[in-house]
Amino acid sequence: MATTPLPNFHAIIPAGGSGARLWPLSRADQPKFLHDLTGNGHTLLRNTWDRLVPLAGSENVTVVTGVAHARHVSAQLPDLLPGNLLAEPSPRESTAAIGVAAAVMAIRTPDAIVGSFAADHVITDTDAFHRCVAEAYAVAQSTDALVTIGMRPTEPSSAFGYVEVGEGITVGGAPSAKKAARFVEKPDWATATQYVAAGTFLWNAGMFIARASVVLDLIRQHSSELAASLHSLARTFVDGDTNIDPELWAGLEKIAFDYAVAEPAAERGVMAVIPGEFGWDDVGDFAALARLHSTVGDLAVLGKNTKVLTDGASGIVVSQTDRLVSLIGVTDIVVVDTPDALLVTTKENAQRVKALVDMLRLGGDEDVL
Amino acid sequence: MATTPLPNFHAIIPAGGSGARLWPLSRADQPKFLHDLTGNGHTLLRNTWDRLVPLAGSENVTVVTGVAHARHVSAQLPDLLPGNLLAEPSPRESTAAIGVAAAVMAIRTPDAIVGSFAADHVITDTDAFHRCVAEAYAVAQSTDALVTIGMRPTEPSSAFGYVEVGEGITVGGAPSAKKAARFVEKPDWATATQYVAAGTFLWNAGMFIARASVVLDLIRQHSSELAASLHSLARTFVDGDTNIDPELWAGLEKIAFDYAVAEPAAERGVMAVIPGEFGWDDVGDFAALARLHSTVGDLAVLGKNTKVLTDGASGIVVSQTDRLVSLIGVTDIVVVDTPDALLVTTKENAQRVKALVDMLRLGGDEDVL
Repeated sequence: MATTPLPNFHAIIPAGGSGARLWPLSRADQPKFLHDLTGNGHTLLRNTWDRLVPLAGSENVTVVTGVAHARHVSAQLPDLLPGNLLAEPSPRESTAAIGVAAAVMAIRTPDAIVGSFAADHVITDTDAFHRCVAEAYAVAQSTDALVTIGMRPTEPSSAFGYVEVGEGITVGGAPSAKKAARFVEKPDWATATQYVAAGTFLWNAGMFIARASVVLDLIRQHSSELAASLHSLARTFVDGDTNIDPELWAGLEKIAFDYAVAEPAAERGVMAVIPGEFGWDDVGDFAALARLHSTVGDLAVLGKNTKVLTDGASGIVVSQTDRLVSLIGVTDIVVVDTPDALLVTTKENAQRVKALVDMLRLGGDEDVL
Repeated sequence: MATTPLPNFHAIIPAGGSGARLWPLSRADQPKFLHDLTGNGHTLLRNTWDRLVPLAGSENVTVVTGVAHARHVSAQLPDLLPGNLLAEPSPRESTAAIGVAAAVMAIRTPDAIVGSFAADHVITDTDAFHRCVAEAYAVAQSTDALVTIGMRPTEPSSAFGYVEVGEGITVGGAPSAKKAARFVEKPDWATATQYVAAGTFLWNAGMFIARASVVLDLIRQHSSELAASLHSLARTFVDGDTNIDPELWAGLEKIAFDYAVAEPAAERGVMAVIPGEFGWDDVGDFAALARLHSTVGDLAVLGKNTKVLTDGASGIVVSQTDRLVSLIGVTDIVVVDTPDALLVTTKENAQRVKALVDMLRLGGDEDVL
């Protein structure tokens, strides 16, 4: 375990995204990262913070989140410095979120090495995670690479980016570093199946480590306009005005970091990958949540004061009420019981939850989203 | 439609039973007969009353119900005479309920013909029902028979009594009357399957028509002690003390009318049957409730203010809350959403609800029963 923070290392936690596939547990005003999905008594955001502080030091962790969530984030992370909380006036996707944080760091500490980590993933082996990030840090320090951490795929999935592992890189302190031969964001299912069968692809786990200047150069190569706007916003922020200009922000291009930065970096041969083996899960849907909690053929139960009575049932019950939940003869079921919305589906259909949320949004039912 | 009541005809509605298979919709304090399960805006009890008044006249309908429900029954049936409401101090099964009402009628009107009809069944063709009861009444008037109305079975079920149709009876006004060759209460499933295959058996629909004296004679043949107690209780009631003595009542034998009276009557050759074709359903479980409401492959929704959002779902949703209910990819599902209890099962498992209720009772969870 890393007990001394890595020199000049700054962690970024982009805490955005509503986790629509976990509706009605995850809501616009209570997104996935603000939930305790592991049952350890802490929110995913707090777990992420606790995992990063040993690597960066608490004064070097920055959170980028929506204005609506800034208060919740501060409450969850009392040691987060006010100057390390960037509140997005509107959702602009991950290039803007990671980019503005990297730009702030580049101004404050020109030789900073930044690492961006999703706020709402679960990692079980923290020591192994720390060793991986330390390797990625070593590569970022000695090269101009954008370093990602790749997870061994467990199934063909079109929900992830895939990194093709290339030849080894010789960098001190990074024995498992490899070149990324390719980066393909969210391929179709058939392609994903090929990638998994090939055995040479890893899932991108939403972790990127690089020098701040490298990140900003890559953004500039995608769009010099976007890079300039990010720098301007960061300048104002560093100068003390912590309110991000809503109009300037709204004008930023809305694009995922994976498309704007990661794919081009791999194409240009400046991406590296550290294979990670530390029990990672993005808890992408209720099937994943069930997997995280249940034993085979069993019923997982999440929630306080949950009274559950079953007769031949398996799957997962998530309860945010104190109602009695009774299940008879339903297998691989997903029941999410909240005060104003109830969801009943199956693990197999877990991915379809997002379409239903889209349907609600189109129908104007914003109050339950 | 019978517009003039049948002379001396008195209808009895035993309104007991909690409808455990419809939990958590049906509760101890809000049993099945107090619910509007047809969606016509009236409770099943009220529908039963409305069906019987044209046959008996409103002054000749008696309800036997638990003391806890007497107030609800009166509220539902404002025209029910106070002297026609018998409040059972404790549940003693149908022989006691029907018997005490028959005994009251025998005292008040010695030549009364009584008809007992369940409080919580659904009948769609009221005119056909009236014609059937009129035939049964004609048989009861001219013979010493206990007349039942038999429904054509739609499937093998061990939840019903089976009446084997025997030879015809020649009675004026009862062209379809037949002798009941046999009466078998709740046979096992294999036997039920044989009966249905034979094509000569009808379901007992819980309707019995006979002279009051015939009913009391049949009870006396089962147990002279029970008959004497019922007469004594009826005497006190008729004399003006409408509170049934709890101790005397608690001492009555607890036995279903089907076992104590119907089976022996058939054995002695004094049972008749009128085949009925009037769209009958005892709404025995949520599968039956779904059948009552849905079109094939569809989702039935019961409840006020119910917001339901579905994607590839079929079955039934019963809602007593104003929560949004979302169903994705669940077929033949049963979701019953009440303020303090939620049930999720499938139509196939609908009969298992009773076992779960028994489990709750054993566990001491009386508050949700």
